[in-house]
Amino acid sequence: MEHSSLPREDLGLFTDLYELTMAQAFFRQGMSAQATFSLFIRRNPPDRGYLVAAGLEDVLDYLANLRFSAGSIDYLRDIGIFTRDFLDFLAGVRFTGSVRAVPEGRLFFANEPVLEVTAPVIEAQLAETFIINQVNLQTLLATKAARCVWAAQGRGLSDFASRRTHGTDAALKMARCSYIAGFQSTSNVLAAQRYGIPPAGTMAHSFISSFTSEAEAFQAYADTFPDRTILLLDTYDTVEGARNAVKIAKNLEHDGHRLVAVRLDSGDFESLSRQVREILDDAGLDYVQILASGGLDEFELDDLVQAGAPIDMFGVGTKVGVSADAPWSDMAYKLVCYDGRPVMKLSTGKVSLPGAKQVFRVRDGQGRLSHDIIGLDHESYPEGEALLEQVMSGGAPTGPAAPLDLIKERLAQDLQDLDAGIKRIRHPDEYPVSVSPALEELRVQVEQQLQTAQ
Amino acid sequence: MEHSSLPREDLGLFTDLYELTMAQAFFRQGMSAQATFSLFIRRNPPDRGYLVAAGLEDVLDYLANLRFSAGSIDYLRDIGIFTRDFLDFLAGVRFTGSVRAVPEGRLFFANEPVLEVTAPVIEAQLAETFIINQVNLQTLLATKAARCVWAAQGRGLSDFASRRTHGTDAALKMARCSYIAGFQSTSNVLAAQRYGIPPAGTMAHSFISSFTSEAEAFQAYADTFPDRTILLLDTYDTVEGARNAVKIAKNLEHDGHRLVAVRLDSGDFESLSRQVREILDDAGLDYVQILASGGLDEFELDDLVQAGAPIDMFGVGTKVGVSADAPWSDMAYKLVCYDGRPVMKLSTGKVSLPGAKQVFRVRDGQGRLSHDIIGLDHESYPEGEALLEQVMSGGAPTGPAAPLDLIKERLAQDLQDLDAGIKRIRHPDEYPVSVSPALEELRVQVEQQLQTAQ
Repeated sequence: MEHSSLPREDLGLFTDLYELTMAQAFFRQGMSAQATFSLFIRRNPPDRGYLVAAGLEDVLDYLANLRFSAGSIDYLRDIGIFTRDFLDFLAGVRFTGSVRAVPEGRLFFANEPVLEVTAPVIEAQLAETFIINQVNLQTLLATKAARCVWAAQGRGLSDFASRRTHGTDAALKMARCSYIAGFQSTSNVLAAQRYGIPPAGTMAHSFISSFTSEAEAFQAYADTFPDRTILLLDTYDTVEGARNAVKIAKNLEHDGHRLVAVRLDSGDFESLSRQVREILDDAGLDYVQILASGGLDEFELDDLVQAGAPIDMFGVGTKVGVSADAPWSDMAYKLVCYDGRPVMKLSTGKVSLPGAKQVFRVRDGQGRLSHDIIGLDHESYPEGEALLEQVMSGGAPTGPAAPLDLIKERLAQDLQDLDAGIKRIRHPDEYPVSVSPALEELRVQVEQQLQTAQ
Repeated sequence: MEHSSLPREDLGLFTDLYELTMAQAFFRQGMSAQATFSLFIRRNPPDRGYLVAAGLEDVLDYLANLRFSAGSIDYLRDIGIFTRDFLDFLAGVRFTGSVRAVPEGRLFFANEPVLEVTAPVIEAQLAETFIINQVNLQTLLATKAARCVWAAQGRGLSDFASRRTHGTDAALKMARCSYIAGFQSTSNVLAAQRYGIPPAGTMAHSFISSFTSEAEAFQAYADTFPDRTILLLDTYDTVEGARNAVKIAKNLEHDGHRLVAVRLDSGDFESLSRQVREILDDAGLDYVQILASGGLDEFELDDLVQAGAPIDMFGVGTKVGVSADAPWSDMAYKLVCYDGRPVMKLSTGKVSLPGAKQVFRVRDGQGRLSHDIIGLDHESYPEGEALLEQVMSGGAPTGPAAPLDLIKERLAQDLQDLDAGIKRIRHPDEYPVSVSPALEELRVQVEQQLQTAQ
């Protein structure tokens, strides 16, 4: 399977030029020692009480297949800034290092490493661009989608985002991440095929418009899919559309079929859903469900669910597919150790924690998540679960990729064990995360050394 | 060249399931008449006075190569909802229609069609998902980048966004769109190769940290790239970093080379740029430029430029690469004509204009853009330039793809001809766009017919 929608032979060049210029400088200096880089988010995006780890499968696939094709080397030569011996070296580069990571679907929090790479410095540095690109995007999407699932309180959700995600790769990743978060289906057929997610779809306004009347369009669709028809009501007038839908439902009943649902796609969903529910119920069609779509994300879902709107399923698109209220995070991939020496940066507002790390998750007596401790990799907290697992060693994955359904279960379990206040859609409580005394001591020590050295 | 980062054999499945269920209903009804779909943005995103047309090249490549591979047909059969005769038909589907579009790089405005597809209804409908996905993204990115170029007022710009764009496709498209908008370079090496854009890059904090002192790291880089070194100053302390940079510059001068620039990546750019400029100038290094990067988009650029901060170049990343203040638009692809019959929808807040259309751009006596008229395709306004051009006919492009430099020139020319008030970064003036009397008459007529018919 092609990952991340990039042809394998192009993986090497999907990087920032500075990764390659730094590599040539390292190469020239003979610097090939082991480096550890740590991937983390410094500050939670607005209204986020937790983050969902996602994107690891793509990272491991990338690292296992990272190389510079002959065509890539030719292009780099043409740029005119790389030496022949460096390009010869680059042609043979493979990722030979190790990766420790929070498994996909697990929750993590600001400042906690979600992934650490340890490898010869050039290999670890080259991978920066791709690793951030994928884990940042998939974490944002999985987190946004998980918030929708929480807001929907058991109502069904389907991913309708493909047309408005930022490009084709993001469309596929949105389908994957929303499924992990608990969505039932995706509209994207390619994503459904690649990831084994149920595909879902109804009809567009254009379908209605291409017939001379709405009723005629409805009937044509019901004739084609008598057992899986969802009728779109708002092309001309939602309430009139509901009355037309009743006629179709009765025709279907007559032939031994059932209309599955009707879809609202514009207007005041709370008011319209009540009117449409009443029309359906009055016609004895209590089994016909109501699907709402159009401009929805967790904030609107929360409002509609709290108001008791009789909506059974939601189709979410644009705002979730671009994580509209938080389209970016400050996820960074920072060098924390080189050749056994712990390092950090001191840039204004961007201080990082030195050394290879581990996150220890401590539960209370009832098994609920109590707090996390960010410690050094070699520390031991017997009362805490070590979150980062070895997922790649010597450049090879330590096991097969986790099935999506397992990732989905991990997330559901973590969320079940998390206090409601931290899951709140607006202004959530902060989950307690502390730094171990040993790590804090190392931080102070490295900072002092740096201030003396510079 | 692979477009949109999707393997050719997967193009058919990159669609919403409903495009295929509607197709089967059309197929079953024997509906194969010509349909025209119109692509447009209903409302300008916040603070946008204009929109930059972008994404057409990918659309044409997609349409010219759209097909369902044997593997895709097998997958669709496995879903279990498609009939054998429909799948046989689908296996032979090719796009045979025509496309009229606003050329890439031209400006367009809310409610104006940027692209119209006319084809047998199934072919035109299937393409909806991909067309919106690409034109929406690339228009948002090109527009955001053009605003940065305007704000930078002649200072250089480089795309540093790859790590934070939404996936790999968006990273490549950001490089393409920002180059169209007038950026000088991109950090993404694959995009540089694919699109022929100059690649650019400096060094990361990790490069500095991997040496035992900043000065040592600076020197190692300068030794490797004596004629193209840009030193990153803020790993520990920007002002101290500038002093270290002066020493390196002097060493380079001694060997007949010149330090190109220094880079600020955190802190108060206005204050720091002044301090660093003074340090450089005091050392006789007036030729060393200052590059700033980190959290910048057109709003910060505008503030810095207005304040007269001595910054020569900007690297922009995250906020531009995700169009942070406007990560989505309401771009829609609406059926406007089926089998010669003009159609529209009446959904609340989503009324569309019927019929195949043309946009006429009228200039004033000085050649500056005066106003646009949205009219019917067959109308004629001799005083106006018809913006939509025939770009595909019978499923084949009418000519070769426009070179990026030509697209860039078109945009530069259109922006030069546009009033400054409409280009303003915050609260721009509104460009006058009207609907022709003939189109307005048709709209009223179709609306009345629809209200009678339903």
